[in-house]
Amino acid sequence: MHIKGKTVFFDSPPIITGHAGVVGKKEGEGPLAEDFDAIFEDTTMGQQSYELAESAMLHDAIIRALSDAKKSPSEVNFVLSGDLLDQCMGSAFALKDLNVASIGLFGACSTMALSLSVGSMLVDGGADCVVAGTSSHFCSSERQFRFPLEYGGQRPPTSQWTVTGAGSAVIEKKGKGITVKAVQIGTITDLGITDANNMGAAMAPAAARTIGNFLRDTGTNPQDYDMILTGDLGFTGTELLYEIMEKEYKIKLKGYHKDCGLLIYDLKKQDVNSGGSGCGCSGSVLCSHIMKRMEKGSLKKVLFVATGALMSPTSSKQGNPIPGIAHAVLLEV
Amino acid sequence: MHIKGKTVFFDSPPIITGHAGVVGKKEGEGPLAEDFDAIFEDTTMGQQSYELAESAMLHDAIIRALSDAKKSPSEVNFVLSGDLLDQCMGSAFALKDLNVASIGLFGACSTMALSLSVGSMLVDGGADCVVAGTSSHFCSSERQFRFPLEYGGQRPPTSQWTVTGAGSAVIEKKGKGITVKAVQIGTITDLGITDANNMGAAMAPAAARTIGNFLRDTGTNPQDYDMILTGDLGFTGTELLYEIMEKEYKIKLKGYHKDCGLLIYDLKKQDVNSGGSGCGCSGSVLCSHIMKRMEKGSLKKVLFVATGALMSPTSSKQGNPIPGIAHAVLLEV
Repeated sequence: MHIKGKTVFFDSPPIITGHAGVVGKKEGEGPLAEDFDAIFEDTTMGQQSYELAESAMLHDAIIRALSDAKKSPSEVNFVLSGDLLDQCMGSAFALKDLNVASIGLFGACSTMALSLSVGSMLVDGGADCVVAGTSSHFCSSERQFRFPLEYGGQRPPTSQWTVTGAGSAVIEKKGKGITVKAVQIGTITDLGITDANNMGAAMAPAAARTIGNFLRDTGTNPQDYDMILTGDLGFTGTELLYEIMEKEYKIKLKGYHKDCGLLIYDLKKQDVNSGGSGCGCSGSVLCSHIMKRMEKGSLKKVLFVATGALMSPTSSKQGNPIPGIAHAVLLEV
Repeated sequence: MHIKGKTVFFDSPPIITGHAGVVGKKEGEGPLAEDFDAIFEDTTMGQQSYELAESAMLHDAIIRALSDAKKSPSEVNFVLSGDLLDQCMGSAFALKDLNVASIGLFGACSTMALSLSVGSMLVDGGADCVVAGTSSHFCSSERQFRFPLEYGGQRPPTSQWTVTGAGSAVIEKKGKGITVKAVQIGTITDLGITDANNMGAAMAPAAARTIGNFLRDTGTNPQDYDMILTGDLGFTGTELLYEIMEKEYKIKLKGYHKDCGLLIYDLKKQDVNSGGSGCGCSGSVLCSHIMKRMEKGSLKKVLFVATGALMSPTSSKQGNPIPGIAHAVLLEV
């Protein structure tokens, strides 16, 4: 690999040889239903807690991705994954029986892009086969960050609905599949947003920075991509992203951009306010819907930019701002 | 790099060109006082919360490590760091004004070894300069995992004292310093320990597994190292590690092994029960005391194996076991 500006370019691009996106019932009632690799009607996954249900879903996505790549866990050098739960428990309990060397990541909702980025760099550096993955669960996230479900708290229009789902991709040095041409690790960006019910606003500046840097480092424009795909900015964050890109970078993004949080639900019918969010949002949409469209040839060049809001229940209660981060992955067929 | 078994070997070993370990008042009263790069008498660091104090300490360690390596943040490709706080807030707030691309990691108390391992692989793969780091703070950890300080809860003999401190190291492709000859990413190991006041027991099986794998992959014995250094097994975990190594691997570790959690405090005088713990324990001890001894030549070959207990307040309350993980880094001068 070589680094130009903030972007890492691969001379022999790593290949995504297998992938899977799995979701829960509500996501399975949305517009992408046909593309998911599994829809779990029972979102408890038969587990004793929502947290273990999330782990079971990530475990399922990893096994499906490995199966798609015709690989067994023993052939994997490293699994890279993380999630939104305290101390990344979703991943720890998903991986603990897989018997694979595990690199724990934390990138909040940017984790799918972070795991693909670091995983691709490790494959480029000499690993043969790594697995990237992430998950989120509506019920475990509500318990973690907000209120007990039974409380039935009101949700403001800017709030987003945490996706119950998981995504996973197998990255190899050789093979047939989608290539990872370049990646960019994001820089933490803090514009002082403190409203934990407006994640889109906290993350949009980081997305703009990473997209701006990527286009500059590659000398490209939005029209050079079939799609610039953000993770979970939702309706509010997307509007803000367009505004920042135009004002700060003089770049018009509208028309070339989609957001996983807007793709996964029918915003008019599914009562999700500003759209979907959570690590599992971009994880499940990218690793099923988008990658399947790329394999069919209807998308050839996708710049995937997942964003994360770096907040914790403690940091929010203490009145701290919510720093954002966005990592980018350039996928091509 | 090339991988043999579970171990990653570097053909052109990355070099640790700068490092720093900083601690709080209690650690500064312990046996390693002379080696720390800074001892903060005021462990609030002038911040409004213990969490932000932890961030300030990590920020300080990173700046000192960069200064030691004569590097500015703008010359750094990636910072890799993580901590024990929910959603790794210690790192997020430490890094948010540094303006450097950030890879968030989660490895609990194994983070210093995880950040050095992944950072070294990225430098070997093509990055010029990365920074690895981690932190912990007694007061933020107590709030996170246990009880309010004012409650004055009793601590069982197996419990450990979370170190207030941070460590950071700069890794470069070229330069003068300690070389990273090999690393091993650990595999999550769960023997069903559920006592959150006995982290040593939860982590010892993972340490034994990683040390056993490393000695096998390298064809070496404990006597081939000046020191095999674990992170924070403490007194209880160390005894268990010796027992597992003898029974399962037929390897006698006693005499060749030290533990950062036993080195940092005077167990008889400082009322820390089983010893020190926390990401900042091995972070501060390795990046000051140990690396300084290596530079002076009194230690030439150190196998650093930091362990992490993968538990969260939620997973513990739900009665789940505490899976452990251990990552290894072989340092040589």
